[in-house]
Amino acid sequence: MSKSISVSYSNTGPLHLRRGFGTHLIDEAGIQYLDTRNNVAHVGHCHPEIVSAITYQTQMLQTNTRYVHPHSSLLASKLVELMPRNSELKVVFFVNSGSEANDLALRLARAHVRQRRKLSTTGSADGNRNEFVITVDHAYHGHTISTLDVSPYKHRQGTEIDNCPNHVRMVPCPDVYRGEHATRHRMKRQRQQWHRESDMEAAKQYASYVERECESITSDGDVVSAFLMEGGMSVAGVILPPQTYLRRCIDAVHKAGGLYIADEVQTGFGRLGKCMWAFQYTYDDNNNPDCNNGDVETEMNEIIPDIVTVGKPFGNGMPLAAVITTPTIANAFESLGVEYFNTFAGSPVCCAAGLAMLHVLTSERLQENALHVGNFLLNSFRELQLRCEYIGDVRGSGLFIGVELVRDKVTLEPATEETSFVCSMLKEKFKILTSVDGAHDNVIVIKPPMVFSIEDATLFLSCFEKALVIELPTAKDDLGNLGRTPT
Amino acid sequence: MSKSISVSYSNTGPLHLRRGFGTHLIDEAGIQYLDTRNNVAHVGHCHPEIVSAITYQTQMLQTNTRYVHPHSSLLASKLVELMPRNSELKVVFFVNSGSEANDLALRLARAHVRQRRKLSTTGSADGNRNEFVITVDHAYHGHTISTLDVSPYKHRQGTEIDNCPNHVRMVPCPDVYRGEHATRHRMKRQRQQWHRESDMEAAKQYASYVERECESITSDGDVVSAFLMEGGMSVAGVILPPQTYLRRCIDAVHKAGGLYIADEVQTGFGRLGKCMWAFQYTYDDNNNPDCNNGDVETEMNEIIPDIVTVGKPFGNGMPLAAVITTPTIANAFESLGVEYFNTFAGSPVCCAAGLAMLHVLTSERLQENALHVGNFLLNSFRELQLRCEYIGDVRGSGLFIGVELVRDKVTLEPATEETSFVCSMLKEKFKILTSVDGAHDNVIVIKPPMVFSIEDATLFLSCFEKALVIELPTAKDDLGNLGRTPT
Repeated sequence: MSKSISVSYSNTGPLHLRRGFGTHLIDEAGIQYLDTRNNVAHVGHCHPEIVSAITYQTQMLQTNTRYVHPHSSLLASKLVELMPRNSELKVVFFVNSGSEANDLALRLARAHVRQRRKLSTTGSADGNRNEFVITVDHAYHGHTISTLDVSPYKHRQGTEIDNCPNHVRMVPCPDVYRGEHATRHRMKRQRQQWHRESDMEAAKQYASYVERECESITSDGDVVSAFLMEGGMSVAGVILPPQTYLRRCIDAVHKAGGLYIADEVQTGFGRLGKCMWAFQYTYDDNNNPDCNNGDVETEMNEIIPDIVTVGKPFGNGMPLAAVITTPTIANAFESLGVEYFNTFAGSPVCCAAGLAMLHVLTSERLQENALHVGNFLLNSFRELQLRCEYIGDVRGSGLFIGVELVRDKVTLEPATEETSFVCSMLKEKFKILTSVDGAHDNVIVIKPPMVFSIEDATLFLSCFEKALVIELPTAKDDLGNLGRTPT
Repeated sequence: MSKSISVSYSNTGPLHLRRGFGTHLIDEAGIQYLDTRNNVAHVGHCHPEIVSAITYQTQMLQTNTRYVHPHSSLLASKLVELMPRNSELKVVFFVNSGSEANDLALRLARAHVRQRRKLSTTGSADGNRNEFVITVDHAYHGHTISTLDVSPYKHRQGTEIDNCPNHVRMVPCPDVYRGEHATRHRMKRQRQQWHRESDMEAAKQYASYVERECESITSDGDVVSAFLMEGGMSVAGVILPPQTYLRRCIDAVHKAGGLYIADEVQTGFGRLGKCMWAFQYTYDDNNNPDCNNGDVETEMNEIIPDIVTVGKPFGNGMPLAAVITTPTIANAFESLGVEYFNTFAGSPVCCAAGLAMLHVLTSERLQENALHVGNFLLNSFRELQLRCEYIGDVRGSGLFIGVELVRDKVTLEPATEETSFVCSMLKEKFKILTSVDGAHDNVIVIKPPMVFSIEDATLFLSCFEKALVIELPTAKDDLGNLGRTPT
């Protein structure tokens, strides 16, 4: 296998995993690990209901969407039911991966903007020159050629794409801890109080980049085809944009004739606890659990994407992803006369896994669990932050949490090697698997299976504290030899 | 679900399938259909060994390639073993679909050509302007934005892409029955004797387009990044290029510094009976079964691709595909420093399905079965051709056969409506599922599960003859009302 496919913990010994159940993974030596990072096994590793759904359907029939099967239509309708109530998000395309989903979303946006503008549709690179996609710095949207173009995270990782491609405009990541418009709020955030006014101000500043791109593109006679963003940015290190940022961006993009594509591949299906989708996330002072499906914001302010993409957790590990859009956008695509066929997508077996995942999510009330355990984790990390020099920021919602480690809470110097050490220590000594992300590889990203319990969280917190407060100071001299843990 | 996702037999009543086994599918009313078209359920629908492998592994562990699992390394090495013995095709990337495989193959070719030419790597549309991919008319290589660009079949289907994109050069389909350089051979082919000299002449003529494109591109100071072709073109209507065509094309492309990407998504894993991969196919007068792995041609003439993509049959229905390339090309990609991570690809469950598929393929000697039953079908169709006015051409190899229906064996006027009628009749009256493809929707493409038996073939042939010789003439007046069967 190619060396481009990186293996976790390759510095201290890769994991040879053999079994999984719930929040645990077991290696070939029988050692059991607590999993704080796998957001694909959404309702837990090898959940019996998922296993049984796949087993049954694999015996019965595995075929494609050229034939009608109740699993695909049922799953499509269940997906539509999960969309915001006021939306027209009613048309579903099944695909195999988040990358395929975002790739198709870009095709849909292109079809929409062309129908709207009655542009000539040469489909060529030159013909597309005047259609722009706006993407956010440090975002990752997939590994296909088209989705790489809109993934600044990958542009920064190597030299495959040195500069932002010509048809893509990149705006700064709306990071209120470390970004350009975060400085003024830093002290307030360190005291861990959400401050509505300063957050709103940051939102305004960050959104102004999108507004300016829209103006600049349209004033040149060109068109904005889409603004593509994760409601909660994952590889950027758990960045939830400040309140009103999305609203402002979407308004600007809509005004310019473009679409808002909400990438929910990492964050969808209740991970944030408070809401089913990250684009619905709203800040509040007391973590009100009732803000689901936009109830908290007025209808006028409710965020409604034009296209939503889902993936990773959808099939609990089975390759299953989807694009949900409106009849208007689907019609624009259909009117081009090109059949959409995807061999494996929407097959009865993958859809059986998706249906079982959604059933367990509801029957075991895992969104509530994510909120409950997530709040416990957030509060505990914030308490730890007060007595630990390294914890610069604790952020997120539900079971989507980022703990950013810094060497200095004023300069915010990233504690990259320390973060890598803590993760290696957690794996080696405490048998806990974690994930590192963020622009400086210094954010521990907690995104475990949604069955992560208070007991799991308690164990994790206690080991994390030991690694950070006891192990790290005694090992500081050797840090240089450890290298970084691939995320 | 979007109306762009077309359903088979929507004119006469879509199929609501519920079960599958071997070469049979059963609908919700319990009606059993013979399946002559599903090349994904390679070793048969719901093969017990595949079911059992998936069931076991789903219970044990489903995770990603950041951890080491013996299934993925074993499957990668088995795939490498199936490559031509003299090749350096030793590096594997797992992906989820044929589309993802061809998309990644294009990335690899881009990395290779840039390393070779030390080009600046802007990755932008404009920066790519001088890197060309050569593709064949009527080819289909996938539904992602990059693979659509190289799929003339889709360019012709609608208005999403009106012209061949600027970075793509299209050459004519090497069709020796209907293409530009087929006329002189028509009478000989109608007598169904393969004629080495005329075929070689056609190969020379068709390959000259590729040679000329290579010359034109390089003489402008631009570069050829890849020549992408299926060894057996499927949606083009079972086009096996004439002898020496591939050799000539590859030589020209290599001379220009480009790579040959062999798309084996439809034809791989022994479907052609005589060989494991379609790019290895060689014509011979007596269907010699020993020409596997290039033994028949001298080593000098053996076709060795630079990149091979596989998909559809690989997981027998589970989403599983792969790209196989050489260390040199993989190194060029790796040296760009971009990690390749694909969430679902190469997971233990999908690899378990792939391993089981390969085991059944060998243990049940299905490649031999494909050759045996394929020869029986080819000979029987050719016999039928002599007494049936509609059968213009019978072509293919193993269980990859095209039967082209025409209204006139001299003008070759396509019998499009008649083909649609025959397929509808086969489904409605005889409970046999078929597939229609080709530029004029008049080629019945036979690509059943590889367990298709002589008994299945006998039943199919007898029903096909009845539909064509008895039903079609009596229904000719109503043909206009039938519409076309989506393929």
